[in-house]
Amino acid sequence: MAKWFSRTPRRIEVPRLRSRSEDLPATKVDLHEFTPEPMAFLGRAAYVQLTLFENLSRAISSAPTTAAKTSIGRAAELSLAKHRALVEEIERSGGTPSEAMEPFTAAVDEFERVSHGADWFETVVTCYLTAGFLDDFFARLAAGLPADSRVRIAAIFTGESGESLLAEQLQVAIDENPRLASRLAMWGRRLVGDTMLVARSSLVLSENHKSDEARVEPVFTELIAAHTRRMDALGLTA
Amino acid sequence: MAKWFSRTPRRIEVPRLRSRSEDLPATKVDLHEFTPEPMAFLGRAAYVQLTLFENLSRAISSAPTTAAKTSIGRAAELSLAKHRALVEEIERSGGTPSEAMEPFTAAVDEFERVSHGADWFETVVTCYLTAGFLDDFFARLAAGLPADSRVRIAAIFTGESGESLLAEQLQVAIDENPRLASRLAMWGRRLVGDTMLVARSSLVLSENHKSDEARVEPVFTELIAAHTRRMDALGLTA
Repeated sequence: MAKWFSRTPRRIEVPRLRSRSEDLPATKVDLHEFTPEPMAFLGRAAYVQLTLFENLSRAISSAPTTAAKTSIGRAAELSLAKHRALVEEIERSGGTPSEAMEPFTAAVDEFERVSHGADWFETVVTCYLTAGFLDDFFARLAAGLPADSRVRIAAIFTGESGESLLAEQLQVAIDENPRLASRLAMWGRRLVGDTMLVARSSLVLSENHKSDEARVEPVFTELIAAHTRRMDALGLTA
Repeated sequence: MAKWFSRTPRRIEVPRLRSRSEDLPATKVDLHEFTPEPMAFLGRAAYVQLTLFENLSRAISSAPTTAAKTSIGRAAELSLAKHRALVEEIERSGGTPSEAMEPFTAAVDEFERVSHGADWFETVVTCYLTAGFLDDFFARLAAGLPADSRVRIAAIFTGESGESLLAEQLQVAIDENPRLASRLAMWGRRLVGDTMLVARSSLVLSENHKSDEARVEPVFTELIAAHTRRMDALGLTA
């Protein structure tokens, strides 16, 4: 874990925000060896999505303008639809959604607590950065699910997201108050650690931790590069 | 207004929760004479729906169980979809959603403040009762919109709602702690006044207030009867 933190993420110049779905075909590594049982995967992912949605709904309530409320409302709707799709997968597999999510609530609630943000701007940065990171992560982890469901479930995470809507709102806020940028850049860097912890704790590792880490690391390098691109897109140096 | 408050609502025995759509065909009166211009109608209704959604999202965050979170999450999704449908109607009419909603934010925010509730149980009662009341109200008010849109827009309010999901959650809570009932009944009664105020302020009245009131009153009598049925369904004496 410490090793991932200290790595300097590669800076990538991107001319514009790219959609999640354009990013994914370039993926060369996935996490299929480390995927938990389907019900554990779905329960955790569904609860994570619910938490991402809760962050968004808090950002709606505290939004400074009606335009921001509407825009973040749309992002919240997309997030809630992902949660719903995961809940439907749990039911399709014969599980009870609340029981499937229960084992993961404590850890994810703790993530929610630390990624809360001190004000609306930090909350929206959290929504923008952690949703992108975790959707990318779960899409890669879905590669190890049974063949009859993996494509369908991965598609939930790579589907339409509110990322560009959130980026627009943040861009407006930063343009209006350029001094926000350094605070939000610092917040964005702090978030990486806690977000990686949520991702990392989803992996089923073998006895051979050293060998696992060697295979997991390239994925996290990619996820961090994507995180850096998201920050760069807003002019926040990562 | 005072007159409506003092009326004793008729108590109606209902054997079970009825869906909103079963209730509506029985409507004999509507509010077509008092309907504002389409953009004002849509702006206010869209902002009211956003506020109803915000109440629901607060109820998700503070839910006592994961099952409650999921269930209320579904209700929130339906509520947000209604907001979205209204936003799309604003855009279809060439309006800007945030500009259309702006004139109504202060009054609706005040409604949100007073209907907040002191804890999760009161918040869920608010979601259950005020959404039902206001959806019924706006469905009736939509009758006065231009012919090419009125059926489509009324259908937004009469579509699937989270009402029965919220009722189930409240029933579970009341069964577990019967002493909650009297507090929630009192809260439910208090909500009628503020909810009616939101509805009432949406009407475009003529110079002849006395005649207007005579024609508006039967609608509010119906809306209050439906409110009473919702409370009865949970064993809350209205």
